[in-house]
Amino acid sequence: MSLDLMIKKITTMNNPSVAGLDPVLDYVPGYIQDKNFEIYGKNLKGASEAIWEFNKGLIDALCDVVPAVKPQSAFYEMYGLHGMEVLDRTIKYAKGKGLYVILDVKRNDIGSTAAAYSAAYLGRTMVSNEMYAASPVDCVTVNPYLGTDGIKPFIDDCKKYDKGIFVLVKTSNPSSGDLQDLIINDETIYQKAGALVRKWGADTVGDYGYSAVGAVVGATYPQQAKVLRELMPNTYFLVPGYGAQGGSAKDVKNCFNKDGLGAIVNSSRGIMCAYKKGNYAETDFAQAARNEAIRMKNELNSIL
Amino acid sequence: MSLDLMIKKITTMNNPSVAGLDPVLDYVPGYIQDKNFEIYGKNLKGASEAIWEFNKGLIDALCDVVPAVKPQSAFYEMYGLHGMEVLDRTIKYAKGKGLYVILDVKRNDIGSTAAAYSAAYLGRTMVSNEMYAASPVDCVTVNPYLGTDGIKPFIDDCKKYDKGIFVLVKTSNPSSGDLQDLIINDETIYQKAGALVRKWGADTVGDYGYSAVGAVVGATYPQQAKVLRELMPNTYFLVPGYGAQGGSAKDVKNCFNKDGLGAIVNSSRGIMCAYKKGNYAETDFAQAARNEAIRMKNELNSIL
Repeated sequence: MSLDLMIKKITTMNNPSVAGLDPVLDYVPGYIQDKNFEIYGKNLKGASEAIWEFNKGLIDALCDVVPAVKPQSAFYEMYGLHGMEVLDRTIKYAKGKGLYVILDVKRNDIGSTAAAYSAAYLGRTMVSNEMYAASPVDCVTVNPYLGTDGIKPFIDDCKKYDKGIFVLVKTSNPSSGDLQDLIINDETIYQKAGALVRKWGADTVGDYGYSAVGAVVGATYPQQAKVLRELMPNTYFLVPGYGAQGGSAKDVKNCFNKDGLGAIVNSSRGIMCAYKKGNYAETDFAQAARNEAIRMKNELNSIL
Repeated sequence: MSLDLMIKKITTMNNPSVAGLDPVLDYVPGYIQDKNFEIYGKNLKGASEAIWEFNKGLIDALCDVVPAVKPQSAFYEMYGLHGMEVLDRTIKYAKGKGLYVILDVKRNDIGSTAAAYSAAYLGRTMVSNEMYAASPVDCVTVNPYLGTDGIKPFIDDCKKYDKGIFVLVKTSNPSSGDLQDLIINDETIYQKAGALVRKWGADTVGDYGYSAVGAVVGATYPQQAKVLRELMPNTYFLVPGYGAQGGSAKDVKNCFNKDGLGAIVNSSRGIMCAYKKGNYAETDFAQAARNEAIRMKNELNSIL
């Protein structure tokens, strides 16, 4: 009912990072694009299959280095049903390789609809007394704007099926302050959201001292992360914004607790496009990704 | 670049309502479930195909009464890829019948990812210099928690492709106040969100005086709707919560402007399950839905 499964993988592999699988088509090596366009056509299907081949190579190269992957649903939904099919295939392949899978969907809705979203990703879908798992992910990201009854169904499924969620608190983007930084009686909205997250997770704390309800806290806002780290000692942070978005290892330090736990740092472009930066051939994209993931692991461990 | 396409249909059909297609399996008549379970199995595929048959019957019966339908993505995603395929089929079928399609996905993310979501539903996906529309919907619902740069890509596509969005402002659920009702200098967060929505839509106002950037305002909060109606005179409201959730015709009156426009009221369960309430045989579910849609239309017109 907690994030223990993820934390156990982090500690075993001594690596508090997650590889984002946000496959913008430009990230995919040209030779993979060409090959799949030839087989499937220069269309949504061909693009999706190119992404699949790229993802598979990345997962093979990363699965003994990183504890988790985080596919970003938007970059699959944009290819329609073909993209969603490749997302499903990617999730199953990653699970088969032993990776913890955080699906970045940022879903939320009113209670009854949130229950349907939770069934889609964390729970079970009932069909005439039979229960089916529509997707085998371990964890999803969730938006808090609708309040408690939009979150509760996810927490119920976390408890039932040993899953986790990360709720948006302080996001990494430049405009995140438009609503999140508004101040009420000396407290910001992201602090209010943080307090809600702490409350929502209070009865789901696992063996490592962390609840099933984590928080998304951007690496691009280290001061805010410090405030939130103190406010939410038992909450794991999913930290986007490291690397390409501008957050450094020093910036993410505030997201960790003194126990060296408390945060899992995401890198998407940095790992997926490592072959474009180093002195690599396109065909060595997987080795380049692996090298960058190891470099990132060492960098994060050096600040802990 | 505005909601004119929708408003034109509303005025032509003299009906400011939208039929929600939130196909909880329990809503589907037993004989349709049994038939599809027999053909496809008692599984996610069988359930999805039963939903498709139900949706098709509803769309056929409603397409000359209501101007728009609003499929709720969660109730398709919960059946995995089969459900998403049926959602795609439903959208295309509704479009073919001339209905305006609002896809209720409540998506949002940081700028680059929001652009991918917008490509998925409103814009185009580029594959090697070819542009593809992954989905033919007219409009989507969007969450504002990430601020301006999470919304801008959607607005850009509204302008380019004559689409619309509805941004969550004051949602219909009991806990919507957890964050939305927090007060900053005498103004609530939902008012702050409303002011942002007004600003975001300012340069997209169409022939009827309404912008491409609408707002979701729950029928269950009529006093808050009144405040927002004054704050956002050029913003169309998508109004959930009428009927089954407790909002009455009187309650939604505050969502309309004096011109009789300004709001489109959603009913999902009320229309989809009308056959369960009246003295109908299961096989008359479509006629029952049609009768309820006409009753709702008359009721809404009586308060305008």
